[in-house]
Amino acid sequence: MAETANPKFLRPLSAPDEDLGQALSFGPENPLMLDEGRKLSPFTIAYKTYGELNAAKSNAILVCHALTGDQFAASRHPVTGKPGWWDFTVGPGKAIDTNRFFVICTNVLGGCMGTTGPAETDPATGKPYGLSFPLVTIRDMVRAQAMLLDALGIDELLCVTGGSMGGMQVLQWAASYPDRVISAIPIATGARHSAQNIAFNEVGRQAIMADPDWRGGAYQGAGTQPSKGLAVARMAAHITYLSQPALQRKFGRSLQNREAISFGFGADFQIESYLRHQGLTFVDRFDANSYLYITRAMDYFDLAADYDGVLARAFRGSKTRFCIISFSSDWLFPPPENKTIAHALNAAAANVSFVEIESDRGHDAFLLEEPAMFATVRGFLNVVAASRGVD
Amino acid sequence: MAETANPKFLRPLSAPDEDLGQALSFGPENPLMLDEGRKLSPFTIAYKTYGELNAAKSNAILVCHALTGDQFAASRHPVTGKPGWWDFTVGPGKAIDTNRFFVICTNVLGGCMGTTGPAETDPATGKPYGLSFPLVTIRDMVRAQAMLLDALGIDELLCVTGGSMGGMQVLQWAASYPDRVISAIPIATGARHSAQNIAFNEVGRQAIMADPDWRGGAYQGAGTQPSKGLAVARMAAHITYLSQPALQRKFGRSLQNREAISFGFGADFQIESYLRHQGLTFVDRFDANSYLYITRAMDYFDLAADYDGVLARAFRGSKTRFCIISFSSDWLFPPPENKTIAHALNAAAANVSFVEIESDRGHDAFLLEEPAMFATVRGFLNVVAASRGVD
Repeated sequence: MAETANPKFLRPLSAPDEDLGQALSFGPENPLMLDEGRKLSPFTIAYKTYGELNAAKSNAILVCHALTGDQFAASRHPVTGKPGWWDFTVGPGKAIDTNRFFVICTNVLGGCMGTTGPAETDPATGKPYGLSFPLVTIRDMVRAQAMLLDALGIDELLCVTGGSMGGMQVLQWAASYPDRVISAIPIATGARHSAQNIAFNEVGRQAIMADPDWRGGAYQGAGTQPSKGLAVARMAAHITYLSQPALQRKFGRSLQNREAISFGFGADFQIESYLRHQGLTFVDRFDANSYLYITRAMDYFDLAADYDGVLARAFRGSKTRFCIISFSSDWLFPPPENKTIAHALNAAAANVSFVEIESDRGHDAFLLEEPAMFATVRGFLNVVAASRGVD
Repeated sequence: MAETANPKFLRPLSAPDEDLGQALSFGPENPLMLDEGRKLSPFTIAYKTYGELNAAKSNAILVCHALTGDQFAASRHPVTGKPGWWDFTVGPGKAIDTNRFFVICTNVLGGCMGTTGPAETDPATGKPYGLSFPLVTIRDMVRAQAMLLDALGIDELLCVTGGSMGGMQVLQWAASYPDRVISAIPIATGARHSAQNIAFNEVGRQAIMADPDWRGGAYQGAGTQPSKGLAVARMAAHITYLSQPALQRKFGRSLQNREAISFGFGADFQIESYLRHQGLTFVDRFDANSYLYITRAMDYFDLAADYDGVLARAFRGSKTRFCIISFSSDWLFPPPENKTIAHALNAAAANVSFVEIESDRGHDAFLLEEPAMFATVRGFLNVVAASRGVD
């Protein structure tokens, strides 16, 4: 293992002098066993921490990011210069209070912000992995995180939390390492990817792979970028993160900097301009192959499948305390999907509370300023911390 | 005007000896006035009729098709060889009974099944229109249909009906030609396109325009086809035609001809295989530029906007009888969108009934075997026919 101060990023940095977090590289003596059968070695996990680990190492909280997130949960994104993706929730005095807790956030396996993924160089060939990178699963991502925590000497997590794909990692943590997880807050997530969600992911992948600049995944060597395909993928996905009522409220049929429709194919409507912007800015910070790999990991996630199809068995005998949070207008992971997890935990006689928060902001609500979510997370962590003697 | 026995189709026919319907061409003496300001001339309307017009010409029903439909509502599609898109609803003894009624279905303006659209040759240049084809609106489509009916000597329509974009045409007919429309059945539709629907259309258009084979719309001259982009557009749209519960019921996480996931990007899941098939077969029968134009016409549809933003004014003094049908799981045109039309009609003191049919099949329910829809349409038409002395 080798610790480096800063991970390598694929993209130009907006503020190169900032604290870019750490990276831990695992050599041949520490291969990562993958679900698909092979070992990944060497590999690197890039991560960022917030707050201080206490002497008892009892105040660590692992925050898991969603599809296009990264380790910059609560600090400026080094490429875009924007606030961290969970800046509303994590920080000094916030719901996940970094004055009290030591927060760790890793870039997932297969990602493109310093952790090994398809855009990294394959040491065996000296070329970028591209499609020769092995397919990774949510369990592989979690296994890599566990290896990082081992290396950091953190045996126990006071809490594991995250939304969407982050929530999948939370569930996998609770199932794979029940003794290490004191509490878990899966948010806006599911124990398996639904047919509709697989369908949307497949549309995104087909959009990327239809772009001739993708070049069978070997675009880095060719000096191209499947930017158009990746932008279309992002646009389609972005719609699923919002909600019909919120889109209507925010955009409706308002026109973009014009008095009347243009009778053409420009961005007449604000919603079109907004979506195009989402697509264009995304390609500046994300790798297209990473998008393929991570969406596939989500599709493959089906926690019950590892337990004879009975989700409750994934949590049998668990002492972890669970707090499940869902949002009423989330149609990517609708409340019933979240409730299914609560039912399974009930069936396993686990300690679980379930909260459905009224919001018209759709799936993305978990990333936004949602006071009811903050109050829920804060209250739950207070109880858990008190039960473990964490100040 | 010149009547031709068969319209010209862009695609190879599967059964060239079939009854392919008619086409009526309007010469320079009959230009089509377009909403965007210019006149379209010459132009052709391709159509198909089912049943017999009675001597009083009082039994005509206009059926309007949706985005990717055509005039082959109740007869084999000449390109795909499949049954007509409304074969469940229209035919001898069916809900729209061609033993009693004379059904007319036209290919919409901008379409690609014989009616003038961007794929047709511009007589001014001798080349395909491509993007030089004027943007057409739902009102333009309806105006062209009205010219066809004038030419056929049909003054009055016993009913105008259709689902989705077909329903938009129904509403426009009732607003533009209230004296010609005895009754109207708009199905699974809205009086304007919502922000979310514009967003999905925009994703589809961006997918097409991102395809280098689209060539700025001039692909016909270049001998290319933006098939990959059009397939992605179709895949994204197709998801919106279904529903989460129906997708889960039909496909769930079932694998496609394999025992286990492949750890790759092939179509592991049945839903992926199904979507890819939808994309691939669509490009064999549809023109990419037509897709751009027709989606844009839908986006631009906002009936109230022509009446100072008050939808009820579109129907003021209307003597048309309305029957509005919506489906509970339709999230493209959810029941509230349909109900808005009913409320406006109530406010205009029009004769309206509203039916919400319980179904988990989403927007596409209107194309499927839905006995409650058949009973509603049949019963409504019986009453309307009786009131007009149509046997």
